[in-house]
Amino acid sequence: MRIVLVNVNTSESVTESLRRHAARFAASGTEIHAITPFFGPAAVEGYFDGQISAAAVMDRVAALTEPYDAVIEGGFGEGGQPGLQEMVAVPVISITDAAAFAACLLGRRFSVMTTVPQAARQVADRLLLAGLRDRCASIRPTGLQIPDLERDPGSAVDLIVKTAALAVAEDGADVICLGCAAMADLQDQIAEAAAVPVVEGVSAAVKLAEALHVLGLRPGLKAGSEPRSQVPGWPLHRYLPRP
Amino acid sequence: MRIVLVNVNTSESVTESLRRHAARFAASGTEIHAITPFFGPAAVEGYFDGQISAAAVMDRVAALTEPYDAVIEGGFGEGGQPGLQEMVAVPVISITDAAAFAACLLGRRFSVMTTVPQAARQVADRLLLAGLRDRCASIRPTGLQIPDLERDPGSAVDLIVKTAALAVAEDGADVICLGCAAMADLQDQIAEAAAVPVVEGVSAAVKLAEALHVLGLRPGLKAGSEPRSQVPGWPLHRYLPRP
Amino acid sequence: MRIVLVNVNTSESVTESLRRHAARFAASGTEIHAITPFFGPAAVEGYFDGQISAAAVMDRVAALTEPYDAVIEGGFGEGGQPGLQEMVAVPVISITDAAAFAACLLGRRFSVMTTVPQAARQVADRLLLAGLRDRCASIRPTGLQIPDLERDPGSAVDLIVKTAALAVAEDGADVICLGCAAMADLQDQIAEAAAVPVVEGVSAAVKLAEALHVLGLRPGLKAGSEPRSQVPGWPLHRYLPRP
Amino acid sequence: MRIVLVNVNTSESVTESLRRHAARFAASGTEIHAITPFFGPAAVEGYFDGQISAAAVMDRVAALTEPYDAVIEGGFGEGGQPGLQEMVAVPVISITDAAAFAACLLGRRFSVMTTVPQAARQVADRLLLAGLRDRCASIRPTGLQIPDLERDPGSAVDLIVKTAALAVAEDGADVICLGCAAMADLQDQIAEAAAVPVVEGVSAAVKLAEALHVLGLRPGLKAGSEPRSQVPGWPLHRYLPRP
Amino acid sequence: MRIVLVNVNTSESVTESLRRHAARFAASGTEIHAITPFFGPAAVEGYFDGQISAAAVMDRVAALTEPYDAVIEGGFGEGGQPGLQEMVAVPVISITDAAAFAACLLGRRFSVMTTVPQAARQVADRLLLAGLRDRCASIRPTGLQIPDLERDPGSAVDLIVKTAALAVAEDGADVICLGCAAMADLQDQIAEAAAVPVVEGVSAAVKLAEALHVLGLRPGLKAGSEPRSQVPGWPLHRYLPRP
Amino acid sequence: MRIVLVNVNTSESVTESLRRHAARFAASGTEIHAITPFFGPAAVEGYFDGQISAAAVMDRVAALTEPYDAVIEGGFGEGGQPGLQEMVAVPVISITDAAAFAACLLGRRFSVMTTVPQAARQVADRLLLAGLRDRCASIRPTGLQIPDLERDPGSAVDLIVKTAALAVAEDGADVICLGCAAMADLQDQIAEAAAVPVVEGVSAAVKLAEALHVLGLRPGLKAGSEPRSQVPGWPLHRYLPRP
Repeated sequence: MRIVLVNVNTSESVTESLRRHAARFAASGTEIHAITPFFGPAAVEGYFDGQISAAAVMDRVAALTEPYDAVIEGGFGEGGQPGLQEMVAVPVISITDAAAFAACLLGRRFSVMTTVPQAARQVADRLLLAGLRDRCASIRPTGLQIPDLERDPGSAVDLIVKTAALAVAEDGADVICLGCAAMADLQDQIAEAAAVPVVEGVSAAVKLAEALHVLGLRPGLKAGSEPRSQVPGWPLHRYLPRP
Repeated sequence: MRIVLVNVNTSESVTESLRRHAARFAASGTEIHAITPFFGPAAVEGYFDGQISAAAVMDRVAALTEPYDAVIEGGFGEGGQPGLQEMVAVPVISITDAAAFAACLLGRRFSVMTTVPQAARQVADRLLLAGLRDRCASIRPTGLQIPDLERDPGSAVDLIVKTAALAVAEDGADVICLGCAAMADLQDQIAEAAAVPVVEGVSAAVKLAEALHVLGLRPGLKAGSEPRSQVPGWPLHRYLPRP
Repeated sequence: MRIVLVNVNTSESVTESLRRHAARFAASGTEIHAITPFFGPAAVEGYFDGQISAAAVMDRVAALTEPYDAVIEGGFGEGGQPGLQEMVAVPVISITDAAAFAACLLGRRFSVMTTVPQAARQVADRLLLAGLRDRCASIRPTGLQIPDLERDPGSAVDLIVKTAALAVAEDGADVICLGCAAMADLQDQIAEAAAVPVVEGVSAAVKLAEALHVLGLRPGLKAGSEPRSQVPGWPLHRYLPRP
Repeated sequence: MRIVLVNVNTSESVTESLRRHAARFAASGTEIHAITPFFGPAAVEGYFDGQISAAAVMDRVAALTEPYDAVIEGGFGEGGQPGLQEMVAVPVISITDAAAFAACLLGRRFSVMTTVPQAARQVADRLLLAGLRDRCASIRPTGLQIPDLERDPGSAVDLIVKTAALAVAEDGADVICLGCAAMADLQDQIAEAAAVPVVEGVSAAVKLAEALHVLGLRPGLKAGSEPRSQVPGWPLHRYLPRP
Repeated sequence: MRIVLVNVNTSESVTESLRRHAARFAASGTEIHAITPFFGPAAVEGYFDGQISAAAVMDRVAALTEPYDAVIEGGFGEGGQPGLQEMVAVPVISITDAAAFAACLLGRRFSVMTTVPQAARQVADRLLLAGLRDRCASIRPTGLQIPDLERDPGSAVDLIVKTAALAVAEDGADVICLGCAAMADLQDQIAEAAAVPVVEGVSAAVKLAEALHVLGLRPGLKAGSEPRSQVPGWPLHRYLPRP
Repeated sequence: MRIVLVNVNTSESVTESLRRHAARFAASGTEIHAITPFFGPAAVEGYFDGQISAAAVMDRVAALTEPYDAVIEGGFGEGGQPGLQEMVAVPVISITDAAAFAACLLGRRFSVMTTVPQAARQVADRLLLAGLRDRCASIRPTGLQIPDLERDPGSAVDLIVKTAALAVAEDGADVICLGCAAMADLQDQIAEAAAVPVVEGVSAAVKLAEALHVLGLRPGLKAGSEPRSQVPGWPLHRYLPRP
């Protein structure tokens, strides 16, 4: 099968990291096609960024010419899944949902490790809409920014492990979710040091996409239907300078 | 005070209708500056449309050069308020919230009259995020599309009044909210025929914006802060052909 | 328009303070008619007080002979709004609702600063009935009593500002509501020292009452209907000695 | 033990009916002291009535001179329990709570049969505050008024049984609660005709009061403490003409 | 009346303690028949134990030959009530429900003192299914194991009282529930030292069973019906060696 | 990997059907080891059956001597997962959770088709504990019993498709879950006739178990720990006659 993995920010290095991580867990017959939006924020850290990104991922997917079997929205806490799902007839999986459902299979309540505090609200809203707020013990910002994760991974791992330990001890979490796609590369080190399972969303989404594919499950009739009204200027990338 | 009223679709006639309706209820010292996005759907009837629109309204507001005291997002059920609020330091009021809060002051539970069924999910999600699901008796699609409202307002009024009567009788609503900005022009006729109060969001938002202005209330420190990461291509309208 | 602002306690100095605060924010055509119940507690600090007060405010409003366009129940957390609303055909606005809705327009979650701990339960119950519990980050008693607010306003401001800072830091509030009508006079000083917006309910209720008036919105058919059964002894003030 | 059973309306015939019903289920050592408020509505059918009644029952209890071991508030859906509980150091049991808890011991979800539609909101609010909304399948008004229950009990029984059958078939109820104290006399006939258990609140409250008494359980320190502020005019009955 | 009190573990000394405690609070005409399962854990401290126990209590009750009027499931947080209720036509009362409902009559929010941390999840799940999560301020493990309660009751009382004080101060509880049937013997000492009422579930269940009996209330038609399918091997005790 | 698929009833033909269905969707390296409890009901249709079954599946798993990588509890709505998870260190997946999570990836709200009405309560309780009640549009009993599914599959498919259509039209479901493991064989025919995706839990659980395996995710430290107390008679099958 062919999975489109759409990064939510315009950082090519993050896209490459997502691709590498996804490919590591993909089944042998699964092709990962990782793509970067044509415009939008270099990192998504709040609703201003997120709303541009939600349009940009749809714009990027609209440019695809080859067929595919599933789409993964590769941004934790991002809100573009419902619009993407209306665009295409194959399953669109948010890594937030993927991580949360995997976590729910492993324990009673999970905590999410986010980057900056302003990212937490989007995560909270996403879990509320997913109906999973009761399974979420806490959302804990680490204060890390995406560049910190790449620049000094050792310190980042330490900080995330310490924050996870607080979530276990004080909030009652028995599973940890990495709340930022850019943390994927650190999963092994964090998992080794943590006392509870550590779930990463990109890898989880790949396996869920494969699962739905084998099960022959696709969204209902409304998915992938034609846009219902004229959209002047859409898709936007036709007019924008390529980065 | 100066209120920016941003339409969520690219229909100039809807923008003009919103402006006229807002101006009718504005206080004498209030100036209504109604604007239309530079791109995006002609009507917003689901999440695909809504996500483009949420970026487009931010893009449009980013083009403003004159100061203003409040922003109203003029689309019922639309989700662009949080991103807009991060952009600007003045209150950003969604007409969904405005209508819902006004309705809550008038009765115990309100019902929302929407247009097409696919618009109902966005409204439901918005009310859930607003924490007001318990006050919402039902969301009832009328099946009307925006052009229907302009083409045959008499039939539209009849249908909305009949649907509202069902919401009162079967769902226990004691207030009705018009769930589409384009229904504003029909408010008087609907209100006359309905047995319960009929709230319209654009007019409610104007009065709430004025209220916050007189009260001297503005959002906290995070609102209007600089975007936190570089956003290649932003704002988009610099590159797009003007409609 | 003419707004009846009914104090919930029998302290004339509080009534005068409410009147002054309301008048400061009222539009030019708005007349504030502040009234004091004929009987009831000098301060309302729990349900025993609150239940006497809920009858006393209805009794006081029943004595009005001049027409009016709205009623404001001027006690934070008090529960007399539904009964008052059954009595009269104009909107009856609780300052709890007014403050909470204004706060919801300004941020994600608000905290309420109350006086004594026993007042917190009434506030919590009121917000639960209003369907707004999810938007309330916390209700924090300051330990202040109403006389403290008048006797040593400087210390009261300090304590409220410190408590508000805890609500922001520990409970995640991004808006503060003053949870006692008698705190209205301190609003400016608290707002100046606080890092987040500070909402006061009496002023908010005045603006919401004016908003509903301009919008032409009144409660539905049931409001203001005749009492359904005989009420021996009612209204009570006919028999009670005037204070 | 000595139980004070305070009627919420001023109808002596209802008080006598409550007393008779309570006495029928009381243990041999239990004395039922049924009392009628000195003022207030002849029937409580909404919040206007209910708020006068909530003060009146406190006023009536304040006139008691003999000691007692528990108080029962004998009005279904009425809201006076919290204030009464602050007044006295013994348990104060609302018949709404008593019926609901008994129903929860007998089935999964219960439905409440009320009288007029306007009484349903108070019941709904009371169950929400009690945290029991999820156990309540529905609140169904029968349209009966209290005089109807006394005038034509046969027809009333028929109507309640039919309404109960609808609650079982359509709402999933497996227990019925009689939502009006004046229905107590009809309990046997209703129970005989209904397919599911029928709970009546006055009798349930008597048994729960006795249970707490034998268990030696009393509310905590705050109950029965002195009123915290001066209450001019209180208790009111000193000034009111005796009915 | 005759109450069957079924211990959830196979410790005869616990059964005897439950019997003694129940008998102390039983009315004069009430006979307590305390029984021990024929197999299952010596102490129930989690779901593994609990699921064996849930079958074992049904197996034990299936062996009864004399009639009875009520069954009490004597394990706090245990989940066997629904299955038992399908087996027999008389009320089956869980001591979790009994304690929680009694606590709700005495205060606004209760906290549960459990033994080991792994027992807390069962209690939380039980309260969630009972619809009472909003009335539960916290579930606090004391770290005590059942043998600790018998071996050094003085230290156990101290620890429970200290934990209860934290629940009152930090979680807002105004009632304490003893979250383990084996704490019944310590109730008097804990109640004496605690600032708020202390509810014990076995005694509460006895009184509730008696109350339902006097009220003539039994579960609906589905209770006590014949098992719907063949159950090979059931009841199990026919094959198991007697302990 | 090796997956243990434990049937919840003692019908060998159901076990074989589950095995066949699971094997059909299993990856090439996955071995399905389907097992039948040594005792318990021939069909699980309520809590009485379910509680025996919850012990029987643990008893059966305790008899395994070969290693395995995951356990699937093959009964829709059954409650044995938490106890099994405490027994073993590998993931234990309930088919209820598996179906519900897969459904949540495909639509906004799902409906569950159950067999007899008495099975619905267990399903509802399970979804409540899973925190997914808000995503569940309805649980609709078809009235079918397990033998009906095998005897006349054509009629069963018709009835399930009709019931599913009602769930879509009246309850707002956009995904259907087959709420009985014995419906697995009918999935293809139902899916072909239904307008929305049809999720079956056994196949979904197989793919989720494989996903967790590839992701290297196992439950935390508490899973698979030694039973904490002595369990006389356990495991039970040592004493029971083999069927």
